[in-house]
Amino acid sequence: MNTRFSIIVAELVFGLGALLAGSLPALAQTDPLPSWNDGAAKQAIVTFVKDTTAKGGPKFVPPAERVATFDQDGTLWVEQPMYSQVMYILESVPALVKAKPELAKVTPFSTVLEILKGDRAAVAKLTMPDLEKLAAATLAGMPVETFEAQAKKWLAEAKDPRWKRPYTELTYLPMQEVLKYLRANGYRTYIVTGGGQDFVRVYSEAVYGIPPEQVIGTAGGTKYGYATDGKPFLTKEPKLLLNDNNAGKPEGIHLMIGRRPLMSVGNSTGDQQMLEYTKAGDGARLSMLVLHDDAKREYAYGPAKGLPATKVGAFTQALYDEATKQGWIVISMKDDWKKIFAFD
Amino acid sequence: MNTRFSIIVAELVFGLGALLAGSLPALAQTDPLPSWNDGAAKQAIVTFVKDTTAKGGPKFVPPAERVATFDQDGTLWVEQPMYSQVMYILESVPALVKAKPELAKVTPFSTVLEILKGDRAAVAKLTMPDLEKLAAATLAGMPVETFEAQAKKWLAEAKDPRWKRPYTELTYLPMQEVLKYLRANGYRTYIVTGGGQDFVRVYSEAVYGIPPEQVIGTAGGTKYGYATDGKPFLTKEPKLLLNDNNAGKPEGIHLMIGRRPLMSVGNSTGDQQMLEYTKAGDGARLSMLVLHDDAKREYAYGPAKGLPATKVGAFTQALYDEATKQGWIVISMKDDWKKIFAFD
Repeated sequence: MNTRFSIIVAELVFGLGALLAGSLPALAQTDPLPSWNDGAAKQAIVTFVKDTTAKGGPKFVPPAERVATFDQDGTLWVEQPMYSQVMYILESVPALVKAKPELAKVTPFSTVLEILKGDRAAVAKLTMPDLEKLAAATLAGMPVETFEAQAKKWLAEAKDPRWKRPYTELTYLPMQEVLKYLRANGYRTYIVTGGGQDFVRVYSEAVYGIPPEQVIGTAGGTKYGYATDGKPFLTKEPKLLLNDNNAGKPEGIHLMIGRRPLMSVGNSTGDQQMLEYTKAGDGARLSMLVLHDDAKREYAYGPAKGLPATKVGAFTQALYDEATKQGWIVISMKDDWKKIFAFD
Repeated sequence: MNTRFSIIVAELVFGLGALLAGSLPALAQTDPLPSWNDGAAKQAIVTFVKDTTAKGGPKFVPPAERVATFDQDGTLWVEQPMYSQVMYILESVPALVKAKPELAKVTPFSTVLEILKGDRAAVAKLTMPDLEKLAAATLAGMPVETFEAQAKKWLAEAKDPRWKRPYTELTYLPMQEVLKYLRANGYRTYIVTGGGQDFVRVYSEAVYGIPPEQVIGTAGGTKYGYATDGKPFLTKEPKLLLNDNNAGKPEGIHLMIGRRPLMSVGNSTGDQQMLEYTKAGDGARLSMLVLHDDAKREYAYGPAKGLPATKVGAFTQALYDEATKQGWIVISMKDDWKKIFAFD
């Protein structure tokens, strides 16, 4: 084949291949991770991708098996001062109280009204059972399409208190690059989140390029029924099917994918079992944890490494020690990330 | 471009495209459904695919949304005289009784031993709670990898009593063609089965080209734990997470895919809600039912249309009437399928 011919063929093949694979073509010469500083974390990602995709190499993995799983809150986007979905639930309370005024004097609804009036410290009063109660009250009995429309509307209007931007803009550019780099190399990228599966699915495609069927999250049941005109619809039920935290993450991965991931990234104790499960497979495996050690550009919290403690996305010293012992790579936001947000 | 050049380019593009898309290329000129007789069913499939993939057409659907769901037993492969997974469970009983001899005198284990000794009629004695009890006894507490290995071994050795072939060869060639035709047109094909999700995932890729993450089935919970050497593993639990029959099919589709299918195919009352849910969406939708009306080449059972009644995969007259009312296409095995099996 002569050279010009080869180039034309290569372009055609390449172009169609990328189109069919539904992903970006692999970038041969340019840096796939430009927002990362050179260091052990970046090197580990590049080595892992090269090893698992090198045809004929000892660590080659067929495309069908290339699965990578990512926690969302604190791993792909900002989770401080409070998970965005919790903000969504809190901000759904006034409409609920308007419909049922008697709730205004009952906890936890009364507590939420105080918080929304400006008493931010009152958030600390909310317990997990309170949040579950609020979630059930604001979601249960709602057709799934209504929920999707409400969540979409809230996401379009709500703003993070610090950056005054939609929550959906607060994703970490370095992690967006990792997602794209993996997909360009034949990986399917999944979100495996403790957050609500239906909630994250509303924006995952637009925000991360991750389609709904690749979002695994804490999932409630739905109930199939019929409207008065006979049209069938699904209603959200208060029944919990999957608590996608801790051991629930590998259990959810088995339920929804049925394959062990080759790579997993998290940032808190709720991700430990997913990272263990990933690493326990054969061949090349990569488990990583994002450490929020950058108070200036984002937030600093641990309590690992003497960072301030938090109730939202805690990274304990025990988790840090386990990472060291197991060979999981800790990503320092401060040292490993050149840029944090696309708007920086 | 000159002609020879075009052909070489086309072959390269075509070849790599197929490789990347993991499916057969669309057949431009040749019949994509050669095992189908011309008729309303074949025409409905071809029209649906053409309509939903015609760029700029009024019924065009973007590739990301192209989802088609298929029941398995009786829709993609033979389910008579008994679901193959039930045979697997029954044939797992002797090993269980060997380990716990006291079970030999307790129902339903004693009933199963009678059946396996040749008293086929004794199958009728088994109730659904019996089968659930047997499934729990033969599966619960087993690491998922052990289950996969056992199921794989059984599938390699077990033979259907009529054709004396492995169950995995008893798939319907016309339906295999539909799966390939859809995938060649950018569809993702899912199995949505009342059978066990973990069981079907063992062979779905090899038998149908459907990867494990696109198999939705009746699913039990798993439990994450650690071996004595600290290695984590998942154990099958007797807890039912999803009963993927009837209303459980659309509920399972929402849980696992989060998109409404554009096309669904089933063959029994357990598929009705999936077909309703599919048809209730906007735009082009196709719901179909396979009617087993071919006693000579396969089996004949209904009781729709006066066919013999069955407990395994019943297609009632009420379902037939509903299909007529709702515009679901009934596929007659006898009239619509030129060939039934690849080995015919």
